[in-house]
Amino acid sequence: MKKDEIRKKILESLNWRYATKIFDSERKISEDDMNVILESARLSPSSIGMEMWKFIVVNNKDTRVKLREAGYNQSQITDASHLIVITYRTDSVDNLTKERIERTAKVLKDGQGNLEGLKSMLENSITQKLADGTLDTWIKSQAYIPLGIMLETAAMLDIDTCPMEGFNSEKVDDILNLKEKNLKSITMLTLGYRGADKTIDYPKVRRDFDDVIEFI
Amino acid sequence: MKKDEIRKKILESLNWRYATKIFDSERKISEDDMNVILESARLSPSSIGMEMWKFIVVNNKDTRVKLREAGYNQSQITDASHLIVITYRTDSVDNLTKERIERTAKVLKDGQGNLEGLKSMLENSITQKLADGTLDTWIKSQAYIPLGIMLETAAMLDIDTCPMEGFNSEKVDDILNLKEKNLKSITMLTLGYRGADKTIDYPKVRRDFDDVIEFI
Repeated sequence: MKKDEIRKKILESLNWRYATKIFDSERKISEDDMNVILESARLSPSSIGMEMWKFIVVNNKDTRVKLREAGYNQSQITDASHLIVITYRTDSVDNLTKERIERTAKVLKDGQGNLEGLKSMLENSITQKLADGTLDTWIKSQAYIPLGIMLETAAMLDIDTCPMEGFNSEKVDDILNLKEKNLKSITMLTLGYRGADKTIDYPKVRRDFDDVIEFI
Repeated sequence: MKKDEIRKKILESLNWRYATKIFDSERKISEDDMNVILESARLSPSSIGMEMWKFIVVNNKDTRVKLREAGYNQSQITDASHLIVITYRTDSVDNLTKERIERTAKVLKDGQGNLEGLKSMLENSITQKLADGTLDTWIKSQAYIPLGIMLETAAMLDIDTCPMEGFNSEKVDDILNLKEKNLKSITMLTLGYRGADKTIDYPKVRRDFDDVIEFI
């Protein structure tokens, strides 16, 4: 692929993308495309590689009806082709460091890395964030990296999205039994194809380049 | 561009990407590529369209030396082709709603949207988050959406990156005079081309697909 084509495609995709209000409930995303979107989330980087998240793809129709009730009746939750509930881990202190070391040990070859050094770095990082009260914000924030990446991947594949924070997270956690899985919901991402949505033609609202980017 | 080529390019790019430890300090990102990366950040969505961020591109060499001191001497801060300090707005209660209404009013045509309804929705949202103590986390989290998007855009353009949270943010804010601009630093993104980095060949460490994605 030529570099100028990629540059053009990225900008076209991000300009085309908008928060879809009405999805065409008849159109479904192909399995190939969904795999690329989910794989994009899996490959997302996270602070010190902790991957402190889990992505719940809700295909069950009854569950989606319940989630819509917990989401102030927003139609995207049932009408979009796919719904991904992005969750974050609540067992960070107990398990995240241990799991990170285990999966790193499994793939590194002899002479690569320093697992003892990594372990103490990770432990210190968690301990310090716990002590200064920033652990919770840190863990939640990371979940927005794969959100951004999935939004871009979807747009590149001509797939519409609407990221949603407006829902009762306690109700969503109950519906999906997240507590027993040491997870909490943070955002939802609905994906599919735009339907009869009058906001399609609204001009994009963004700050001007000079207002949001400064060169020093 | 064919769909299967795009799918392949996205996955190749995200697999190729890694947190670059050593940049080639001689290689510079072209202006065309930097424009696409920064435009990707500008076009990033944010919760209720608040765009509660600003991206500071630090080209001044002396400033980058000072930032490296505030960043535990990590070489990427001076050696990468480009450094973007991602900041978030501290004047959210005073200005974000007002600015959002102003820029929306400027682009919407007659009959599009309901500015009064939008205004009260935005005000209620900020008021509620302020009351329940979630405003700060909400604003900080949003900054990770453009971070994710810039990481993916850069990778698609064969540009290396290292996102960095390990720095003394108060020192960084001082060096960049952020306080007087109602901004605080939250992450840094270094961008360029990988140099003599022994970690290039380390296998990628990620959770397995089934461990991080669940279907319900």
